[in-house]
Amino acid sequence: MAEPTLLARYLPILQWGRTYNGSVLTNDLVAAVIVTIMLIPQSLAYALLAGLPPVVGLYASILPLVAYALFGTSRTLAVGPVAVLSLMTASAAGAVAAQDTAEYLEAAITLAALSGIMLAVLGFLRLGFLANLLSHPVISGFITASGILIATSQIKHILGISGGGDNWPEMLGSLASNIGLTNPWTLAIGIPATLFLFWVRGGLKPALLRIGLKPRAADIAAKAGPVIAVALTILAAVMLDLAEKGVDLVGAIPQGLPPFATPSTDMDLIAQLWVPALLISVIGFVESVSVAQTLAAKRRQRIAPDQELIGLGASNIASAFSGGYPVTGGFARSVVNFDAGAETPAAGAYTAIGIALASLFLTPLLFSLPIATLAATIIVAVLSLVDLKTPGQLWRYSKADFAAHLATIVTTLLAGVELGVITGVVVGLLLYLWRASRPHAAIVGRVPETEHFRNVERHDVFTVPHVLSIRIDESLTYLNARWLEEYVLERVADQPEVRHVILMCSAVNEVDASGLESLEAINHRLSDSGIDLHLSEVKGPVMDRLKRTEFLEKIGGRVFLSQNRAFRELSRDNADPSLPDDIARGLI
Amino acid sequence: MAEPTLLARYLPILQWGRTYNGSVLTNDLVAAVIVTIMLIPQSLAYALLAGLPPVVGLYASILPLVAYALFGTSRTLAVGPVAVLSLMTASAAGAVAAQDTAEYLEAAITLAALSGIMLAVLGFLRLGFLANLLSHPVISGFITASGILIATSQIKHILGISGGGDNWPEMLGSLASNIGLTNPWTLAIGIPATLFLFWVRGGLKPALLRIGLKPRAADIAAKAGPVIAVALTILAAVMLDLAEKGVDLVGAIPQGLPPFATPSTDMDLIAQLWVPALLISVIGFVESVSVAQTLAAKRRQRIAPDQELIGLGASNIASAFSGGYPVTGGFARSVVNFDAGAETPAAGAYTAIGIALASLFLTPLLFSLPIATLAATIIVAVLSLVDLKTPGQLWRYSKADFAAHLATIVTTLLAGVELGVITGVVVGLLLYLWRASRPHAAIVGRVPETEHFRNVERHDVFTVPHVLSIRIDESLTYLNARWLEEYVLERVADQPEVRHVILMCSAVNEVDASGLESLEAINHRLSDSGIDLHLSEVKGPVMDRLKRTEFLEKIGGRVFLSQNRAFRELSRDNADPSLPDDIARGLI
Repeated sequence: MAEPTLLARYLPILQWGRTYNGSVLTNDLVAAVIVTIMLIPQSLAYALLAGLPPVVGLYASILPLVAYALFGTSRTLAVGPVAVLSLMTASAAGAVAAQDTAEYLEAAITLAALSGIMLAVLGFLRLGFLANLLSHPVISGFITASGILIATSQIKHILGISGGGDNWPEMLGSLASNIGLTNPWTLAIGIPATLFLFWVRGGLKPALLRIGLKPRAADIAAKAGPVIAVALTILAAVMLDLAEKGVDLVGAIPQGLPPFATPSTDMDLIAQLWVPALLISVIGFVESVSVAQTLAAKRRQRIAPDQELIGLGASNIASAFSGGYPVTGGFARSVVNFDAGAETPAAGAYTAIGIALASLFLTPLLFSLPIATLAATIIVAVLSLVDLKTPGQLWRYSKADFAAHLATIVTTLLAGVELGVITGVVVGLLLYLWRASRPHAAIVGRVPETEHFRNVERHDVFTVPHVLSIRIDESLTYLNARWLEEYVLERVADQPEVRHVILMCSAVNEVDASGLESLEAINHRLSDSGIDLHLSEVKGPVMDRLKRTEFLEKIGGRVFLSQNRAFRELSRDNADPSLPDDIARGLI
Repeated sequence: MAEPTLLARYLPILQWGRTYNGSVLTNDLVAAVIVTIMLIPQSLAYALLAGLPPVVGLYASILPLVAYALFGTSRTLAVGPVAVLSLMTASAAGAVAAQDTAEYLEAAITLAALSGIMLAVLGFLRLGFLANLLSHPVISGFITASGILIATSQIKHILGISGGGDNWPEMLGSLASNIGLTNPWTLAIGIPATLFLFWVRGGLKPALLRIGLKPRAADIAAKAGPVIAVALTILAAVMLDLAEKGVDLVGAIPQGLPPFATPSTDMDLIAQLWVPALLISVIGFVESVSVAQTLAAKRRQRIAPDQELIGLGASNIASAFSGGYPVTGGFARSVVNFDAGAETPAAGAYTAIGIALASLFLTPLLFSLPIATLAATIIVAVLSLVDLKTPGQLWRYSKADFAAHLATIVTTLLAGVELGVITGVVVGLLLYLWRASRPHAAIVGRVPETEHFRNVERHDVFTVPHVLSIRIDESLTYLNARWLEEYVLERVADQPEVRHVILMCSAVNEVDASGLESLEAINHRLSDSGIDLHLSEVKGPVMDRLKRTEFLEKIGGRVFLSQNRAFRELSRDNADPSLPDDIARGLI
């Protein structure tokens, strides 16, 4: 495949659009209808989770999809509101305004705008690699803890009581103090809806297969479970007049297309929101890219992570200007889109049309939808995110990764989503830097009758007392430069007969300026003690750079192409009669 | 040397104290006298630089030295006020209070206390490795920029005008607007004093050698230059009655021992000061450890960096409680101490006694010392810190290191010391993470007639189309896990005939949980395409951990001890007649 032009790189639609035809259109349209049906209750539910009016969820599912279709590189990613970002939006907006106020909605819109701008800027600067700072253990810990927080936050809607809190202790405390006010009618809707949705997730697909549906059709039909729950509970609410009995209903949703909205330009508000917006951007990007990569690999397609940042940035900016809140590529909806046969991002645009039609004509039907049904949808969706196997696996595999995972879970539960992510990143980075500052190195000796050199502690190898060979198993960078000095000088201090030190650099891919200064310092200090410093097996690119410095002239010893040659020549250098036979045999 | 007991580790005096005798005492006493003479003008000058009353500099040179003698591990480090920390103290204290107020002094004392506590905590937690985050290019950039800032800040004292500013543009602006008010008498003291001190630094030692002094004696005598300048300008001030002519003099310094002071416990103040205190701690620690390591290596001694943190922490706490400000091990004074023959930290304690005697009896003599003399001392001392060679060397050696260096210099000059350090650390870390996220890897083939495998792009090697061998030159960690997936899958996409992928892991020292997940994802996706994933040359410790997981059972292919064996067996696997001769020759 030829390299795309600059324009085509920033507008992927120019690539896939050229081969668009009738059969692709049909497949995309079918996928769009299925995803639309699934998205309507989900969008309402996630808006509820974000503490926003339900219609905001619909707005966030229209223009963002069109923007992603223009700028995104995944063929099948479905963009829109997702659970974790909804929770993060609630936490950030809740910190600057009270729910159900215009300020709260403005904060959510501003978050989307800030996040969109940040994503696009990161994309243009090609800084997608920063998402690497979120390791798998941190992400999975964050998702598990968020799942628990989100499910807990929805229990109040199942009970029909009020409550709040940004973290688990607060949420549980507010539930405990209000549980006496439970509305039995709300409970009578919420509990069956939850059980039904759990059954849909686990039991419906096998049942559909038993009555003869094909696996793919059964899969898709099972995803429509929430729509059935919505229809049945609306019916119940109307027939039993549940509004009279104190059951919270969705109520009037404004009919019509998304409004033109403008994010706030108040610098005080932006100062309060930029950190949460950055976290929302990074978490959203990581979630979206993981999904997009998984799906792309299944069809041997590729995505371009830096262009994905631009695509998601455009989506969020579109969301902000159409009265929505932060969006990203969601796992469940993308899989449905993929399974339903979507072939190009156009399917997303058709889905947008579907949601737009729904918000024009269907919203009156949702007037009597109980909030408890939406809460049940959320609870069932997020509990599948809670992963109880990972902690044990990590504990067995790597204590450092386990520590980062646990720190993320505990902080997220106790101090909320923002501190949770930050703690995970910081703990992961500190552990990484700690290990990077103590790289692996070994004193090596020659394996008898070969040219190989191995760790003296693990193998039965040959050494001579006046030559010390140290193999360094890492690039020399500023993180381990100080360690290198200490390590070499301590090994020399332990072996007073040493006259030659050979640093075997076969695993050294890079020597940065700090590493070079440490080598110079080591050379200087060894010279002071009458010891020569030699290098062996220096890689080509490293040697090229060393040649641009004065180091190779200052060095007391020499640079050898092979460790074997260095050892052979230097052990001979002041050979004494006590040396073993194989010097005589010419093996060294 | 036996491992010290826990108590002896935390109280190094228990080790060196046991062998203390008369000849060591004599050497230490001589060194103490010389250092005391040098320290008196320096302490006054640095207190001036910190914006504090001169006597605070003396206080900071008494108890901190005793504390370091008890807890420090360097035999010859001389602790006290230093230029860079004085500038950082002025910047931090100036942000919360106006100079010459009780609040300003309290802020300086509190900075010392916070910094002392942080250093000690870092030491007990053995977190000294965090200082590695300051790379050589960042430190040297910071020192150069600080030298320029400090010298600029002192010009006003040479001119006898007032001025201020935390950064270069502010300082230059305030100088430019006040230069018309220059006091000619101050200038007449300041310019000759500066020139004299420059000559002392460059020309005095050769002159002393010419008149027959021994090199070491000449060295030490040259360091006494500031004392001569102090004496001469005091004389001039008294004889010419310069106070009458508007020349600023040191004035009355309270006589007596340091008072008992208490740092503030006001949480608002601490909230404002903790970031500068942390930066002061890290910069101070890095400066001190570099000096201590250099001197220790000259005598084949060792220092213990984590215990150094405790020693410097104790010094700063001692400084705070005796009315001083942040201190650390200084370069110039430590070298003088070393050259003058100090053998143990006791020399520091004797110096403390010397300074205490001076603050009891000598301070009246300093009444008429012109401030311009102290400013000249500072200017001459810090201009030697400015290093104009390093930027060019870094540019030639490593563009990334040059970028971190330049960013540190520019930010320090334009935005002050705190932002300068932070920028340097962040830029250095980002560049490191960027490189760590794109490690080196290569497709390898067999060097004909050998068992060696080399990069196909650099060597003329043998490969077969259905076997793809990829050598990974880095540990697999979360920073490069996403890269690994992309790299392997893209190489496979480029070579459609591939049926076997061999990852050659000879340089993989570690696979963390994210790396493992990426290997699993690669295996999964390759399996989907009917390709087997194999590993070769997996190191022992890595293999041990992989065995604790299900990965080795799930993997489509096998784990081979050597790359050669893997390649030989897999190329044979579906050998076809078009393969070259050396298969027939049994070489693969």
